[in-house]
Amino acid sequence: MNNLNDNAAHNLAAIREKKPLIHNITNFVVMNYTANALLAMGASPVMAHAQNEVEDMVAFAGALVLNIGTLTDDWIHSMIKAGKKASELQTPIILDPVGSGATPLRTDSAQKIIEETRLSVIRGNASEILSLRQAESKTKGVDSIHSVEEAAKTAAIMAQELDTTLAITGPVDLITDGDRVFRVKNGHPLMGYVTGTGCTATAIIGAFLAVDDDPLSATATALAYFGLAGEVAGQHAGAPGSFMIQMIDALYTITPEALEAGCKIKMDS
Amino acid sequence: MNNLNDNAAHNLAAIREKKPLIHNITNFVVMNYTANALLAMGASPVMAHAQNEVEDMVAFAGALVLNIGTLTDDWIHSMIKAGKKASELQTPIILDPVGSGATPLRTDSAQKIIEETRLSVIRGNASEILSLRQAESKTKGVDSIHSVEEAAKTAAIMAQELDTTLAITGPVDLITDGDRVFRVKNGHPLMGYVTGTGCTATAIIGAFLAVDDDPLSATATALAYFGLAGEVAGQHAGAPGSFMIQMIDALYTITPEALEAGCKIKMDS
Amino acid sequence: MNNLNDNAAHNLAAIREKKPLIHNITNFVVMNYTANALLAMGASPVMAHAQNEVEDMVAFAGALVLNIGTLTDDWIHSMIKAGKKASELQTPIILDPVGSGATPLRTDSAQKIIEETRLSVIRGNASEILSLRQAESKTKGVDSIHSVEEAAKTAAIMAQELDTTLAITGPVDLITDGDRVFRVKNGHPLMGYVTGTGCTATAIIGAFLAVDDDPLSATATALAYFGLAGEVAGQHAGAPGSFMIQMIDALYTITPEALEAGCKIKMDS
Repeated sequence: MNNLNDNAAHNLAAIREKKPLIHNITNFVVMNYTANALLAMGASPVMAHAQNEVEDMVAFAGALVLNIGTLTDDWIHSMIKAGKKASELQTPIILDPVGSGATPLRTDSAQKIIEETRLSVIRGNASEILSLRQAESKTKGVDSIHSVEEAAKTAAIMAQELDTTLAITGPVDLITDGDRVFRVKNGHPLMGYVTGTGCTATAIIGAFLAVDDDPLSATATALAYFGLAGEVAGQHAGAPGSFMIQMIDALYTITPEALEAGCKIKMDS
Repeated sequence: MNNLNDNAAHNLAAIREKKPLIHNITNFVVMNYTANALLAMGASPVMAHAQNEVEDMVAFAGALVLNIGTLTDDWIHSMIKAGKKASELQTPIILDPVGSGATPLRTDSAQKIIEETRLSVIRGNASEILSLRQAESKTKGVDSIHSVEEAAKTAAIMAQELDTTLAITGPVDLITDGDRVFRVKNGHPLMGYVTGTGCTATAIIGAFLAVDDDPLSATATALAYFGLAGEVAGQHAGAPGSFMIQMIDALYTITPEALEAGCKIKMDS
Repeated sequence: MNNLNDNAAHNLAAIREKKPLIHNITNFVVMNYTANALLAMGASPVMAHAQNEVEDMVAFAGALVLNIGTLTDDWIHSMIKAGKKASELQTPIILDPVGSGATPLRTDSAQKIIEETRLSVIRGNASEILSLRQAESKTKGVDSIHSVEEAAKTAAIMAQELDTTLAITGPVDLITDGDRVFRVKNGHPLMGYVTGTGCTATAIIGAFLAVDDDPLSATATALAYFGLAGEVAGQHAGAPGSFMIQMIDALYTITPEALEAGCKIKMDS
């Protein structure tokens, strides 16, 4: 028995009741899917990136989601502007450093956001997370070339250094705040065949951060919920097109009770 | 019996026959879904936003759709440029003031478009439409916090002031040109769980404007058609992922006859 | 019997084994669908368009896909920068001149890309391809107003002039390198009702170029594969929403053997 299963159910119910506004500054590829995922789960997504608007918009938000998937300098500038405002308002922020490690622009931009804003969570694959520390880490495009286990050793140290919660997602997700370490085993292999499942996981963590003050709990429970949606979808679909639609359906149909029963969250001892 | 049911069937048949080009300058979140909706119904969508292209492109168009969902100053500039050209050519224009009232940038941009172009229709939720008049109206992100009924009183006055047709969509849609008032009851609750259904309604009104000279009739019949697609989709899907796909299917399969029979348009007496 | 059927199976198996990174600088409308198509077939898509990143990113890529569907000058500049780097590295490049012929910006931009980069393939509809040569060719929006047959006569000459492979897609696709001419009859009428099927065909040719040194063979086999996915989808879906999802499923489920058996590629004698 794990007390986070309780939190998971509680968080999902709270999102559906409060419908928190989640402000996303994210990439072009996943905007539509992310917005549909947030709507299906019960949150209220907004996408806004203009430099002369982001501070106004984030003021209404329950959480801010920053994603550098199709970044340019202008967009990074907007992310930092929104991030500073959110930091000031103590609104939780999550960063998805898509492709960090693959190009200098991505690594540098991710690091600039980390320095200039107060991040609650950073979610990425193993290569992306490691690139935030090690100059020598390499990312091939936006796909990971490191296993979660390789990254696990460094993650706890990095979380302390960066004073944030780190989520390294893969077949098993690893979440650590530098003190505690959780692993989430929910998920389905077809998730790797749908574009933006990582980005969508990040947005869903954003929604959980809007209702759960503990970033570690918010992140682990969000990833269990998202992984469970994958499992449910996998019962109805055997190929990625149908699967991605079934995932949206599952985000809508999974009840807090089903989530509590289906959570596969484990604390490292 | 309502003569608009006749118009609805007539408009849909005309779109499928003439395949009007609908020029969209719209937001990143809904571009794909909007384009698919327009294609499925029989129209020919094009998305083009470059300042050195929009005047050339709109010259071919049967209607121009302007949507400020992920606006920046540059995009607003393009919208106004395209809008002025369309006004000159007497090509119908519809504006979707997404999130107007939520941030100054959105309210100001919507108002600038209203002032500088000759709009046939403005479609939004109650908060968005009210924000175009009342400085005190507030929008939470891009979701409405006003009911259609609250807005109904002011809408007729605003339509006269702005010399345009206003469509306030919600569980029941209200359409007025300041003189006549129509209500459309077609629709399905799951439409609120799919991102960009409002934006897509706007694009579909755009297609109807390309074949119907009366903006009030074009708008009411388009909303009945779109709402009916929601009803048909709701017969085949119980969650938002499947539902959004079934809506595209329904836009394709609904015949003019089925539309005429299924229209729930009523004139206020 | 046609030896290209062999190549088709071989290419698909090679993509699934090597998972080549396909760098796309493409339009906002199709980014999500294209990425999902590439993932479903077994390739690894990345979208990156920043001028200070494209040269770094394309260095990892097996192929570069350039698509001017929602172009601006900035994006064209990035395409040329990435294209020059890819040319230098001898990485294959494919251009999709979406809407060329419709506006001067599109025609000029397509021609600039042709002049400044070393293209392996250009894929478009008949009007788009013809516009690259004839000033008098007209495109209505992004849809073709010329038949493949009209274009066929000029295509072989153009392919020689431009020193590239040309693919003119339609009910029957025509592929020529100025020397040989192939026709591909795979496909389904509903493909015309889904936005970005042309753009997705282009991206898929990109993936085939990453594993097949002969652009003509890569292009013909990719189009047969994509058309076969349409045929398979058409067995499961009768309207465009379900159809577009079934196409993604088919890209995942079609085996090299099924592709070899289903190819409808014919060489002009």
